[in-house]
Amino acid sequence: MALTSSITGVVPIAPTPFHPDGRVDEASLDRMTDWLTEIGVDGVTILGQLGEAPKLEHSESKAIVAAVAKRFAKPIIVGVTAPGFAAMRALARDVMELGAAGVMIAPPNTLRTDDQIVGYYRQASEAIGADVPFVIQDYPLSFSVVMTPSVIRRIVMENEACAMLKHEDWPGLDKITTLRGFERDGSMRHVSILVGNGGLFLDFETERGADGANTGYAFPEMLIDVVRLTGEARRDEAHDLFDAHLPYLRYEQQQGPLGLAARKYVLMRRGILASDAQRRPSASLTAQSREEIDYLLSRVARVDSRADAFRR
Amino acid sequence: MALTSSITGVVPIAPTPFHPDGRVDEASLDRMTDWLTEIGVDGVTILGQLGEAPKLEHSESKAIVAAVAKRFAKPIIVGVTAPGFAAMRALARDVMELGAAGVMIAPPNTLRTDDQIVGYYRQASEAIGADVPFVIQDYPLSFSVVMTPSVIRRIVMENEACAMLKHEDWPGLDKITTLRGFERDGSMRHVSILVGNGGLFLDFETERGADGANTGYAFPEMLIDVVRLTGEARRDEAHDLFDAHLPYLRYEQQQGPLGLAARKYVLMRRGILASDAQRRPSASLTAQSREEIDYLLSRVARVDSRADAFRR
Amino acid sequence: MALTSSITGVVPIAPTPFHPDGRVDEASLDRMTDWLTEIGVDGVTILGQLGEAPKLEHSESKAIVAAVAKRFAKPIIVGVTAPGFAAMRALARDVMELGAAGVMIAPPNTLRTDDQIVGYYRQASEAIGADVPFVIQDYPLSFSVVMTPSVIRRIVMENEACAMLKHEDWPGLDKITTLRGFERDGSMRHVSILVGNGGLFLDFETERGADGANTGYAFPEMLIDVVRLTGEARRDEAHDLFDAHLPYLRYEQQQGPLGLAARKYVLMRRGILASDAQRRPSASLTAQSREEIDYLLSRVARVDSRADAFRR
Amino acid sequence: MALTSSITGVVPIAPTPFHPDGRVDEASLDRMTDWLTEIGVDGVTILGQLGEAPKLEHSESKAIVAAVAKRFAKPIIVGVTAPGFAAMRALARDVMELGAAGVMIAPPNTLRTDDQIVGYYRQASEAIGADVPFVIQDYPLSFSVVMTPSVIRRIVMENEACAMLKHEDWPGLDKITTLRGFERDGSMRHVSILVGNGGLFLDFETERGADGANTGYAFPEMLIDVVRLTGEARRDEAHDLFDAHLPYLRYEQQQGPLGLAARKYVLMRRGILASDAQRRPSASLTAQSREEIDYLLSRVARVDSRADAFRR
Repeated sequence: MALTSSITGVVPIAPTPFHPDGRVDEASLDRMTDWLTEIGVDGVTILGQLGEAPKLEHSESKAIVAAVAKRFAKPIIVGVTAPGFAAMRALARDVMELGAAGVMIAPPNTLRTDDQIVGYYRQASEAIGADVPFVIQDYPLSFSVVMTPSVIRRIVMENEACAMLKHEDWPGLDKITTLRGFERDGSMRHVSILVGNGGLFLDFETERGADGANTGYAFPEMLIDVVRLTGEARRDEAHDLFDAHLPYLRYEQQQGPLGLAARKYVLMRRGILASDAQRRPSASLTAQSREEIDYLLSRVARVDSRADAFRR
Repeated sequence: MALTSSITGVVPIAPTPFHPDGRVDEASLDRMTDWLTEIGVDGVTILGQLGEAPKLEHSESKAIVAAVAKRFAKPIIVGVTAPGFAAMRALARDVMELGAAGVMIAPPNTLRTDDQIVGYYRQASEAIGADVPFVIQDYPLSFSVVMTPSVIRRIVMENEACAMLKHEDWPGLDKITTLRGFERDGSMRHVSILVGNGGLFLDFETERGADGANTGYAFPEMLIDVVRLTGEARRDEAHDLFDAHLPYLRYEQQQGPLGLAARKYVLMRRGILASDAQRRPSASLTAQSREEIDYLLSRVARVDSRADAFRR
Repeated sequence: MALTSSITGVVPIAPTPFHPDGRVDEASLDRMTDWLTEIGVDGVTILGQLGEAPKLEHSESKAIVAAVAKRFAKPIIVGVTAPGFAAMRALARDVMELGAAGVMIAPPNTLRTDDQIVGYYRQASEAIGADVPFVIQDYPLSFSVVMTPSVIRRIVMENEACAMLKHEDWPGLDKITTLRGFERDGSMRHVSILVGNGGLFLDFETERGADGANTGYAFPEMLIDVVRLTGEARRDEAHDLFDAHLPYLRYEQQQGPLGLAARKYVLMRRGILASDAQRRPSASLTAQSREEIDYLLSRVARVDSRADAFRR
Repeated sequence: MALTSSITGVVPIAPTPFHPDGRVDEASLDRMTDWLTEIGVDGVTILGQLGEAPKLEHSESKAIVAAVAKRFAKPIIVGVTAPGFAAMRALARDVMELGAAGVMIAPPNTLRTDDQIVGYYRQASEAIGADVPFVIQDYPLSFSVVMTPSVIRRIVMENEACAMLKHEDWPGLDKITTLRGFERDGSMRHVSILVGNGGLFLDFETERGADGANTGYAFPEMLIDVVRLTGEARRDEAHDLFDAHLPYLRYEQQQGPLGLAARKYVLMRRGILASDAQRRPSASLTAQSREEIDYLLSRVARVDSRADAFRR
């Protein structure tokens, strides 16, 4: 099953479960995979930036992809960002063979000019093979690479294999509007736009034309509902639900290891991960941060009973 | 009246009002100043990053400070960030003479090492004079300069004139805790910590030890109430109010000219500014963005009647 | 006398002379100006990056331009780079009135995309007035802004006022070849290309099509001779002279205040400046650095008698 | 044979030879290795930044180390810089087993504060094992990470495994003087300092206290002679030889793929590499660049007969 530009809905960014001693926690990985199937996601992205991919050896990465592929029936996107095309190609070919539907590629933070960015994606697609569908990750806040709508259009039009844009520019609403305008005026073919950036603007991004979400919020059920409600033009209900989650969502969306620590902590409290451990070098929550999260979740639970599980 | 390290409460960052043709709008400036007094702020910061200071000529900057000083009885902090110490000194001396209580200094984005950052503030304080109280602006997201708590402590301890930290690191909660720990263990004297970053974490920052807010949200009344409620240990009420504003606050907190455009638009709709114009080069809101803001504000108004005014 | 795109030859970047106590040294400024006339330069750039412009107050900058304009008959280019268009406009209008031929504008280091760079120069030219000839400063090493040849072409073609490119990209030889190719294929009008970057590649840059040099080497006589010899197709002689200077030229070309300290030291030893003082914050040479420079100059003097003066 | 802090002399950075079709050229690799032995280098660094390491698959990197180790009797340093500690550890352990003497680690360009830099090297040493000697690569121009002398001292004193500093800061002479001062005042143990940055300041760096060179100039024989002559206090002779090479050395030292292209071209013309091909994505010299290099080398040959071979 290959990733295509018609993918829509919610494709969570999954963390990588570890035991406290640093080993990959396979039982948690299986449990998380099954849970994502149960709640009805439309795919999953693994080994992304927050999947602690750089801490995994090549063989571990492959084992994780194999384990997910064995029990997950929807498209699996695998992060293959690497400092060189050799490592990128090796991982991309391996994971496609193991059942991935496509790969995600972030730009190196040394790219500056429009031509450098377009050239990089051309070379990357050549390196991994034009038969491997890929996702552009557009996240200036993390990567310091700014892609104008025109640059994205050039990448899309030059590379048949480009199936999707992971949109996490900020501010980014008008960018979605511009890209959808390119499609309407015929200057760009359609690609899927799924939004990241922690989902911080999901409520309006879907209204602007995004096809869904591709982010790692600890309650993907909410993302699914908001995308669905917006699709049904039930605007107030979509915002009511989104707003109830926003105070915690904002907390989780903090950059770097702290945001991941919050996410893993909540997934542990929800019974999905056995531990919230990160592999070293790691960050951990202070007692005060955990109390703040508990408090925020207790408030979400007043509106969304799915946060109730958290209370036990 | 000099700025001291005991300042607490809410010190809004005020925008600079312009006419659509680019002239400074003095009537709006007066109206805004009086409104800030009425709602009970504890000071005001003008000519900051979002005050479009780089678009103002020296004489205009002085005129604005003079106009505010004439009718505002609380401390006025003036942004004097400049690429060179000559311009910084000239502006700092001029505005202090006109009645400013202190100045705010952001680091140039070329600083890298700890020693460079500490050295910069030492030289800046020497340049403007040790009698001029100053505020450190710690905003890595905007300036790409990362100050550890130890670096802030060094700046505070080396410079008697340092009265306040405008804290807008992100993530930043543990940083406040660490700095307050330095005070408790006696390794750092007390300075005021007022938080910026659009107020996005104000609800917890005050709990962590911040003395208040120093940011430009279009409803400073909310900031005032949250700071007060937290001070009275009315946690749930503080969060209830904060959370009601958060969906719009998040929208306004978008980086760059878009965030400012939102803020000016709301202040115009609230009757405080005659126009939401920015001086060129400027950004303006699309019709869709204005609709989104209107929608968000209508939702805030369900909880906070002060957003009702917006509806007229 | 306005700067035009037909300027050729050597236009030194002049330092700003200071007394050890930080005051502008007007006698040295006059002496330096007269010396530049005597050796036959084709213009001069003042208040550039190495002219310590950010340490000068507006009135001082104006006084320096006035002093140079009074005794210098060739085009004077003035650096007006500023964080905001208001200060840039104010300085540009003032210095043009005082007799400047044009201004030089470096891009702010926050620009990223091609459109941002082109837009910046459009706005800058609008701000200072389309009647003010300007120079693009293309120095990625200092400013972290990378301009492709296409971007430079867009700036040139959009702005009639663009008269010259100060070329200091590195590597940069092929860039000159590409830009001159644009002229030949009719896609770009002619602009003057004078090279900076300390002159480190002047020997080949002139062969590639540069019109001369716009840099601050302490022996502009050498730059003049190399440009002339290359123009006369006396390649070996040009390189012989250039190579004799290269060991010291490389030493002077060190980034930041150290390079400037070397340059001012040599100009002092040559009797042109009364002091090698920089205004604070300043850098000064260690005794070991001075010895190294003396040694290098004694070696240059074996080939170029003009370095003899240094020995006295 | 482990790398120790007593290593001195010249340790060239070796390029990776490729066939025009992109395969590793093993015959050239052997020939280059034997040539380095013949000219008397004191070690070799492979898979460094200019060794095109990111374009090599893990198995290829191992094969190259094994091939060099089989015929080279001096210390082999292997670049193991990687975006994550897992890949760094895997490569470091593998190459040490294959006979490497130590590894070289460059900092990721996202590091900012002093503590982040020190913490990174601590974590890296833990990841690869405290038994693996490592080299700090201090190259701000390439990596945008600025290490003060104090930061280097902290890394050296915290990590027994730190054996050497590859010094390529620019300006950097006073940094060497400061570090050697730390040794004299007893605050830092001795580590080897070998200089990179293309050797652009080798003539003075050795006088300042550097133990030699660790760079990739195409005539390492010159580097060897300059280090030896300086050691024998034959200053003028050292500079005479260095200065004869400087015009070409400067040309080769251009950043990025162009500098490497020049180096490989000259090594090919010298009969050491069969081809100057880079693996894709690659850069190649224009005809004009090749002519410029030929011209420069013909001038070097007037003084250094070893450049004569180039003429055939």
